[in-house]
Amino acid sequence: MNESGRYASFNTNDFLAKVISLPDVEKVELQAMLDWLAGYGADEQGGVTRLLYDRAWCDAQQALAVKMQEKGLTAEFDQSGNLFGTLQADPDSSAASAHDLPIVTGSHIDSVVHGGKYDGAYGVVAGILALEYLKQQFGAPRRTLQVVSLCEEEGSRFPFAYWGSRSITGAAHLQDVRELQDAGGVRFEDAMTQAGFGPGSHYRAAERKIGAFIELHIEQGQVLERLGHSIGIVSAIVGQKRFSVTVSGEANHAGTTPMIWRRDALAGAADMISAVRRIALQAGQPLVATVGQIIPDPGVGNVVAGRAVFSLDIRHIQQESIEQCWKQMLEAFTTIAEEHQLELDWEEHLSVAPIAMNAGIIQDIQEICIQEQLSSHTMASGAGHDSQIFQPACPTAMVFVPSSSGISHNPLEFTTEEDLMRGFRVLVRLLYKYGYGS
Amino acid sequence: MNESGRYASFNTNDFLAKVISLPDVEKVELQAMLDWLAGYGADEQGGVTRLLYDRAWCDAQQALAVKMQEKGLTAEFDQSGNLFGTLQADPDSSAASAHDLPIVTGSHIDSVVHGGKYDGAYGVVAGILALEYLKQQFGAPRRTLQVVSLCEEEGSRFPFAYWGSRSITGAAHLQDVRELQDAGGVRFEDAMTQAGFGPGSHYRAAERKIGAFIELHIEQGQVLERLGHSIGIVSAIVGQKRFSVTVSGEANHAGTTPMIWRRDALAGAADMISAVRRIALQAGQPLVATVGQIIPDPGVGNVVAGRAVFSLDIRHIQQESIEQCWKQMLEAFTTIAEEHQLELDWEEHLSVAPIAMNAGIIQDIQEICIQEQLSSHTMASGAGHDSQIFQPACPTAMVFVPSSSGISHNPLEFTTEEDLMRGFRVLVRLLYKYGYGS
Repeated sequence: MNESGRYASFNTNDFLAKVISLPDVEKVELQAMLDWLAGYGADEQGGVTRLLYDRAWCDAQQALAVKMQEKGLTAEFDQSGNLFGTLQADPDSSAASAHDLPIVTGSHIDSVVHGGKYDGAYGVVAGILALEYLKQQFGAPRRTLQVVSLCEEEGSRFPFAYWGSRSITGAAHLQDVRELQDAGGVRFEDAMTQAGFGPGSHYRAAERKIGAFIELHIEQGQVLERLGHSIGIVSAIVGQKRFSVTVSGEANHAGTTPMIWRRDALAGAADMISAVRRIALQAGQPLVATVGQIIPDPGVGNVVAGRAVFSLDIRHIQQESIEQCWKQMLEAFTTIAEEHQLELDWEEHLSVAPIAMNAGIIQDIQEICIQEQLSSHTMASGAGHDSQIFQPACPTAMVFVPSSSGISHNPLEFTTEEDLMRGFRVLVRLLYKYGYGS
Repeated sequence: MNESGRYASFNTNDFLAKVISLPDVEKVELQAMLDWLAGYGADEQGGVTRLLYDRAWCDAQQALAVKMQEKGLTAEFDQSGNLFGTLQADPDSSAASAHDLPIVTGSHIDSVVHGGKYDGAYGVVAGILALEYLKQQFGAPRRTLQVVSLCEEEGSRFPFAYWGSRSITGAAHLQDVRELQDAGGVRFEDAMTQAGFGPGSHYRAAERKIGAFIELHIEQGQVLERLGHSIGIVSAIVGQKRFSVTVSGEANHAGTTPMIWRRDALAGAADMISAVRRIALQAGQPLVATVGQIIPDPGVGNVVAGRAVFSLDIRHIQQESIEQCWKQMLEAFTTIAEEHQLELDWEEHLSVAPIAMNAGIIQDIQEICIQEQLSSHTMASGAGHDSQIFQPACPTAMVFVPSSSGISHNPLEFTTEEDLMRGFRVLVRLLYKYGYGS
């Protein structure tokens, strides 16, 4: 199936003619269900800590399975612990085809440590309620709709992210992760088995075919809020490269070493960090480059640092822009290292290509926003999401709602109920179109 | 007693006429005794860890007391744990006077964690051997000579430095330190009592009058080695100010926050660290300014830092130069904070005034170096030493010997035996002059 083929199947030209009304959609208790879900893993800081296969995670997934059943969906786990809620297509529908793969919405159930209650959870809760609403209003769809509560996205417990979507799409398998250990030395596979999943469980294998994936998510940035838009339509998820850069000089006594003889690794690193910002600003949006961590060694106030290691994170929606920016930074680092008589070393430890979202679905979302009179903004996602894992396997799109002050991965993460409901309406219309459209 | 009065008592005008020979001085086994002492507190890294009142420290001080007795000195502890070895003046000497206070040499016995075997120890060992040599060669002196193994200088165990010299000069008392705790929560006074010292012990109180203090020490810097001199004559010990500077912005997602909206505390701090180096270089020698530690918060590679705290250490032999430099740095910090929309805060947590060494003793050391044909260099000490505590109480001077590659506070700390012996000869001549001179 080529890209244009996929596009065709998600662009119903007569869409605008089929405007449905959404009776009582405002009565859907999305906020209440989000608050309920946040009780699983509620931490002492007012946030949510729900890590893959831990107690809070198990309780939340099991409670969601019950909730799906209550909402009229068929709930089913897979061996990875992904939870699917299915609204089966009407087998008698003239449009239904055994070859139609299900349209899937959802997001991830896991959180970062001391995270907020919207990241991931919003897409899961909205998906369940959207399917319940559609079933109540329109009965069985012509094409099967599913909501998925993905087991893992954050990489907060084990050093591996997107386990849920990667295991579904076949981008990762148990052998890739089984020996990983969490901070407490627990093996990945043991944690999985302890939670009741894995190949020894009675659940089906995680890998499956999907017709399309649609993810509703909070923006986790300030763009929508600052620009005054309600809906973000994600054009692409940025690619990123992450490096750790090591600058080596000579540790010396801060009192006895004249300035001119110093090979101060921290002073050199500081010049490099300033260069990162300068080059990123020159490159212009949407390029972002960040140094978030630096560790000087020995890291004592009265010793000239002999070594400094800093992180570097570069993101853009075009791979060549990332490469170009890194090249410029490396040239600047090399010059600075020479000036300071320092040695420079670096290690690339992450390289993710930018992923464009499906153009057909993007166009449908744009049309829905016009129809719903919602102010929308087509934008890149600067954060990684499960959608970047799904897109290579099936047509995929993301819808953002504003994050208050852009705060995320924090107990203060917040989106107004009005904005949550606007995103929900977009999701309902989109699922209606693909599930019930001709 | 004023400064000129002190000077007169240490400047014997007919000194050059009284050139003594130093028979067999090269046979003194200084290196062997240093190696022996380094066995107390020898650590697994090949260095020395001997912290105030700990087991290795107690064993070393007790072993030194025995060694002093073996060398013909009277050994005596005080309540702080300082150990004095005395070579009593001949009571029949026509020049001896009951009013003459003893001439004291020595240094400290404690080390940093994983320190070297020369820092402090050299001055103690050289002092013991110098008094033994002088007694053997010339008998009882006209003026009492003492060597002191000071209990503490480094501040490595408790957050308090120079306890030895401060308790002798009366600059600090037990009530200033008794409630301090080490990293393990042990109270200072309890550690002291456990080691057999303190007011409850049978030792004399620490405070005492001293006629002059002479400290032989490794340079702990590269100046002598780079400039090719054997002896450093310390003109002054630098003053220093230490600050912690806090830069506050806004923690943000590294992917979702455009560069132009960031208030990146680490990027701002980096510009400030670069400014510290620029301003210090402009000020010229002997000014040194160091940022040795920086802690970004949250300190994660994919989060724009909301806060960064860095250390700043400024040293110079003139107080006004320190003040002027800090003023310039603060102006630069303020400008950078405004550019980055950051908040700036700082705390001064150390301020030590520069201390000039006694001009008369300096001149005597210079003359000895000429006489001994030793290449000497008059220089500031960029590191703090017990001499800065003694100088306000009595005429004080310091003699440096080269440190290989300037390395100190490290198992690799090293000074050649030749250089150790050159410093020893200077000390012997100086003590002869003050102890046996007319």
